[in-house]
Amino acid sequence: MALLDEDRLFPVEGRARDLARALHAGVRDLPLVSPHGHTDPRWYAEDAAFPDPARLFVTPDHYVFRMLHSQGAPLEALGVPRADGGETEADPRAVWRIFAENYHLFRGTPSRLWLDHAFETVFGVSERLSAANADAVYDRIADCLARPEYRPRALFERFNIEVIATTESPLDDLRWHAMIRDSGWSGRVVTAYRPDPVVDPEFPDFAANVEKLGALTGEDATGWDGYLTAHRARRAFFKGFGCTSTDHGHATARTEDLPQADAAALFDKALRGRSTAEEADAFRGHMLTEMARMSLEDGLVLQIHPGSFRNHSAQAMARFGRDKGYDIPTRTDYVRALKPLLDAVGERPELTVIAFTLDETAYARELAPLAGVYPALRLGPAWWFYDSPEGMRRFREATTETAGFYNTVGFNDDTRAYLSIPARHDVARRVDCAFLATLVATGRLAEDEAHEVAHDLSYRLAKRAYRL
Amino acid sequence: MALLDEDRLFPVEGRARDLARALHAGVRDLPLVSPHGHTDPRWYAEDAAFPDPARLFVTPDHYVFRMLHSQGAPLEALGVPRADGGETEADPRAVWRIFAENYHLFRGTPSRLWLDHAFETVFGVSERLSAANADAVYDRIADCLARPEYRPRALFERFNIEVIATTESPLDDLRWHAMIRDSGWSGRVVTAYRPDPVVDPEFPDFAANVEKLGALTGEDATGWDGYLTAHRARRAFFKGFGCTSTDHGHATARTEDLPQADAAALFDKALRGRSTAEEADAFRGHMLTEMARMSLEDGLVLQIHPGSFRNHSAQAMARFGRDKGYDIPTRTDYVRALKPLLDAVGERPELTVIAFTLDETAYARELAPLAGVYPALRLGPAWWFYDSPEGMRRFREATTETAGFYNTVGFNDDTRAYLSIPARHDVARRVDCAFLATLVATGRLAEDEAHEVAHDLSYRLAKRAYRL
Amino acid sequence: MALLDEDRLFPVEGRARDLARALHAGVRDLPLVSPHGHTDPRWYAEDAAFPDPARLFVTPDHYVFRMLHSQGAPLEALGVPRADGGETEADPRAVWRIFAENYHLFRGTPSRLWLDHAFETVFGVSERLSAANADAVYDRIADCLARPEYRPRALFERFNIEVIATTESPLDDLRWHAMIRDSGWSGRVVTAYRPDPVVDPEFPDFAANVEKLGALTGEDATGWDGYLTAHRARRAFFKGFGCTSTDHGHATARTEDLPQADAAALFDKALRGRSTAEEADAFRGHMLTEMARMSLEDGLVLQIHPGSFRNHSAQAMARFGRDKGYDIPTRTDYVRALKPLLDAVGERPELTVIAFTLDETAYARELAPLAGVYPALRLGPAWWFYDSPEGMRRFREATTETAGFYNTVGFNDDTRAYLSIPARHDVARRVDCAFLATLVATGRLAEDEAHEVAHDLSYRLAKRAYRL
Repeated sequence: MALLDEDRLFPVEGRARDLARALHAGVRDLPLVSPHGHTDPRWYAEDAAFPDPARLFVTPDHYVFRMLHSQGAPLEALGVPRADGGETEADPRAVWRIFAENYHLFRGTPSRLWLDHAFETVFGVSERLSAANADAVYDRIADCLARPEYRPRALFERFNIEVIATTESPLDDLRWHAMIRDSGWSGRVVTAYRPDPVVDPEFPDFAANVEKLGALTGEDATGWDGYLTAHRARRAFFKGFGCTSTDHGHATARTEDLPQADAAALFDKALRGRSTAEEADAFRGHMLTEMARMSLEDGLVLQIHPGSFRNHSAQAMARFGRDKGYDIPTRTDYVRALKPLLDAVGERPELTVIAFTLDETAYARELAPLAGVYPALRLGPAWWFYDSPEGMRRFREATTETAGFYNTVGFNDDTRAYLSIPARHDVARRVDCAFLATLVATGRLAEDEAHEVAHDLSYRLAKRAYRL
Repeated sequence: MALLDEDRLFPVEGRARDLARALHAGVRDLPLVSPHGHTDPRWYAEDAAFPDPARLFVTPDHYVFRMLHSQGAPLEALGVPRADGGETEADPRAVWRIFAENYHLFRGTPSRLWLDHAFETVFGVSERLSAANADAVYDRIADCLARPEYRPRALFERFNIEVIATTESPLDDLRWHAMIRDSGWSGRVVTAYRPDPVVDPEFPDFAANVEKLGALTGEDATGWDGYLTAHRARRAFFKGFGCTSTDHGHATARTEDLPQADAAALFDKALRGRSTAEEADAFRGHMLTEMARMSLEDGLVLQIHPGSFRNHSAQAMARFGRDKGYDIPTRTDYVRALKPLLDAVGERPELTVIAFTLDETAYARELAPLAGVYPALRLGPAWWFYDSPEGMRRFREATTETAGFYNTVGFNDDTRAYLSIPARHDVARRVDCAFLATLVATGRLAEDEAHEVAHDLSYRLAKRAYRL
Repeated sequence: MALLDEDRLFPVEGRARDLARALHAGVRDLPLVSPHGHTDPRWYAEDAAFPDPARLFVTPDHYVFRMLHSQGAPLEALGVPRADGGETEADPRAVWRIFAENYHLFRGTPSRLWLDHAFETVFGVSERLSAANADAVYDRIADCLARPEYRPRALFERFNIEVIATTESPLDDLRWHAMIRDSGWSGRVVTAYRPDPVVDPEFPDFAANVEKLGALTGEDATGWDGYLTAHRARRAFFKGFGCTSTDHGHATARTEDLPQADAAALFDKALRGRSTAEEADAFRGHMLTEMARMSLEDGLVLQIHPGSFRNHSAQAMARFGRDKGYDIPTRTDYVRALKPLLDAVGERPELTVIAFTLDETAYARELAPLAGVYPALRLGPAWWFYDSPEGMRRFREATTETAGFYNTVGFNDDTRAYLSIPARHDVARRVDCAFLATLVATGRLAEDEAHEVAHDLSYRLAKRAYRL
């Protein structure tokens, strides 16, 4: 009994299904382009074995542990590290058993699709995970992980990854990227410039971070001009490690284009820890426009990822720290928020700004109309909780009619869960082929065009948009 | 000619339809669990005959009379009582004729599905209602109503209701519930605790209501501690009549967790009628957290029903009073609004808080992500205007990928329209089976799992979530 | 090879497709009723040939040039006139070639459906437009345009237009309408009253416009009473040219019903150019209620078109002026915004107020519940970016269950693109038939009823709602 249905995610009606199958056959073996993600470059640098099934599939995957927790499993019992270093479950097999006993919770979720895909295609598991087979599956995966062909580089090649981007702070020395480069390995791993720690006045240790930025670049980064110059220097340094993009994870989509003196004054206040919330927000917003102007100079693609209320639970934050599955999407406005940036640089076709959203109501109402007219603006794929079959379908249905396909940028897996990468691309390709098949079956697109678009969405658009 | 299509609401494609049929066959005869609703306990207590077809189907059903009114029928002509006791149509047959002549207005609405279901399955009507057969249908129904097998208790048994909850104010003496209990009848009718009249400073006669609450419990409810103790006492009294839940119908989802002294001060101001709108709102929000804390003590499930702009038309309100079909959904935010309550009690798995919404944009963006991580939070089913095939489909499509099925609580019929209860559960079971069949047909769920989930959604989740 | 699929936009499953085909066969040849649009009355008055393919299909169609621009084509290169009269591409063939080379950008958009429909059915083009056939298609269309059967009146008849409305300012002398009337041509072209220039204090030259209004009517329009009387006079004048409706394109859905003295004071301030933004907004909101009261007198239908952020790009506005594809939808609230108007006139069944939206989240949450109870309120069809297959489908799915079909008003093509009119009605009829077929196939509507509703949606509702 196979875990995966060969025709999964295709339309159910016969002719549309046949069309989807044919479209998918043309793209299923294309290399994976992963222009935005959060895998650890150390994996590729050291190429060490992954420790055990629980620490591969459960403990680091917030989709997985948040669902188990929502039905009562304490995060400690899932081995999630505590902020105070206190005790949590240390036996990976115990963690795995909780996961296996509660595998029914994932019915109908994308996690289930990704997990089954990895279990079957990577580890040869053909039976659905359950309390009954928990230990057997654990043992099978653990045995595999000990073998060389399950190390990160071998999997990279097996997964047919053409290029993958990781994400680093400007303060990162990119030592793992240097180690990869110096190793002679042919895998292409590039970095991306994520300056939140030195751009967001509310980031922990903002002022100290800016000082470090100065130290790394030999600039006085505590002055406005030196600060901008230091950014330019680090961007250039990152470009030396294949970087083609920057990434900005703000709470809102706000942008500003302030007079330089005003920006300098806000920066100064921020450094002295005296910004109001409003001033911090304005400064972040202004920095997006500065980053866009630097992009016009150095060609880096600018990504905006707004709209998450981070670390929503005070209790979980105190006990386990950041990024524990408590980031919750909020309503996000783009029309007024992006205007200052778009007025400054939106008409420049040589610039690429990619906007993501966690507020699906903005797809058809705001983002597609904006991307459908401004030459610099493109739409990022369905993101985070919407990196899912229904989420991707809604994205295409809501954006295509106004922005077309060519103002979108293909797929991002955006993941820390290495084993889920092939599954995520597989889901995206299937959902896009299903969408295209439906357009063909309803007379909205010719079949030859659908094949071309399928190829674009699966491969070419990501390379073009991210300049990879 | 039958009114009901045997395969109604199933997918149209053959294989998916077959799957839906099979799933539905496994759940169609399960007993009805109705954990939230507004039927009148007096019906079950007195077991008197319903008066006539118009007063059964038209005059008390705001879905029905609002639609007729929207196309020009005065509410008076539909027999809706006037606030001033002035004249309205007294002849039920005249009301019924307006209804029958305008039956085409209900095309494509859930009311149409519910009405046809009751007409056919309860009264044996097999012809679509129209001006031509208005009198004949009226006579047939009227004849039935005069017979003992159409009295409330007989219908309760015929409908296969395992348990039904009504909703009462803390000021209610539960006399009808006592009468049911003392009657020896085996039907299980429980109450639910809806304290809006003594929790909402803007409720008519708030201060007098709080005094009554004190009188009923022997507490000085005009002091903060006595007020809370009085709530505890009434909750315990309600539990004596099978109550397992409380219900809160606020205008927004706002919660607060104020210092006790601040809450006491707000309460005092409210009693003296001196709350500002903002203070009244803060007080309501704080009381949700107090209610949640009491739930931790006594085990009652807490339901939050926010987001309706009540009694929108000044003219209709003046002429006919509250609840005349003019309650309109509004945009509702949950991420910030629920944070105080969730910070206080959201991590307690022994608590169940069920959130409903009238703002579908919050399903995928806010509510599913919150319910998908907080152990105390569950999602109520598609509510009110969304208790409909498209509404339920959108609910499953928007919530399942992030919250799964097991952070939802099955179906509520939420109705005052007794005859619609079987139809509403039938619609919910069919739509859920259609959704599950589509998951199976697209390789997202195995068939054996779909059968289990269908049973859970139709029966087990409601019993478990509401502790029935 | 045909461009158009005979079964386009119908459901893919066989039985549902057959039902849709049958429904469509009953309505495909009904005359077109176009109660709201922006074609130029001069076309019908002078009946001159259209100049060339580029100035027919590209330069005046903001859907087309915005998409080309979004991928880097300068608006100058598309022949869009500059505000300063500076040079833009003057060779229509050069413009056409850019369009043809980039025809793939329109894949999956409604523009593509409209363009292919016009190319094939009007000009007999049977091959998809491309760089390769750009000149050949250009020549074929250009040849046609030179022939008498491609002049506006001939096309009007060929398109089977029963009646079309244009839109004019109260300051317009309706000379083209007079010329049409006096020409003896049988085509029915009516005007609509769009008073934004004399109602919106922020409209360019507001005070001067009001003076002109006075001059045209012999009233002192700078006084509040004279201003209202002047409106009444112009409305009567417009009615003389077949006008049955007014139209109001405000930024928000705000309405007000102020005491007359307050309204007069706001008007006075507006005339003197001293309104704050808030006061200007309040005045616009109040004028909607005044217009509704005049509608009670003279029977004109009132249309509200809110929610567009006009001329979003400062740079494009400066270079090319208004209406260059930079109007972006914004979030729009209706529940509170429409209350003053609805409290004033919403209960009057002899009045018709038609509300449109660019915020789809309001369909199910706000607009359908409001239209489903207020006798005066109806829902306009899916508008602007949502005049598309997915947009129309979402409109029906979101509104029908709560408002039914009979609180909607049929289709508006709302276009300046004359050649797209048959295509737009064709899309609307097909999408509605597909929706109805799905209701029938899922047991929610009987087939005989679906035929009746299809006829209503395609023809009768528009005539009835607009009193045409």
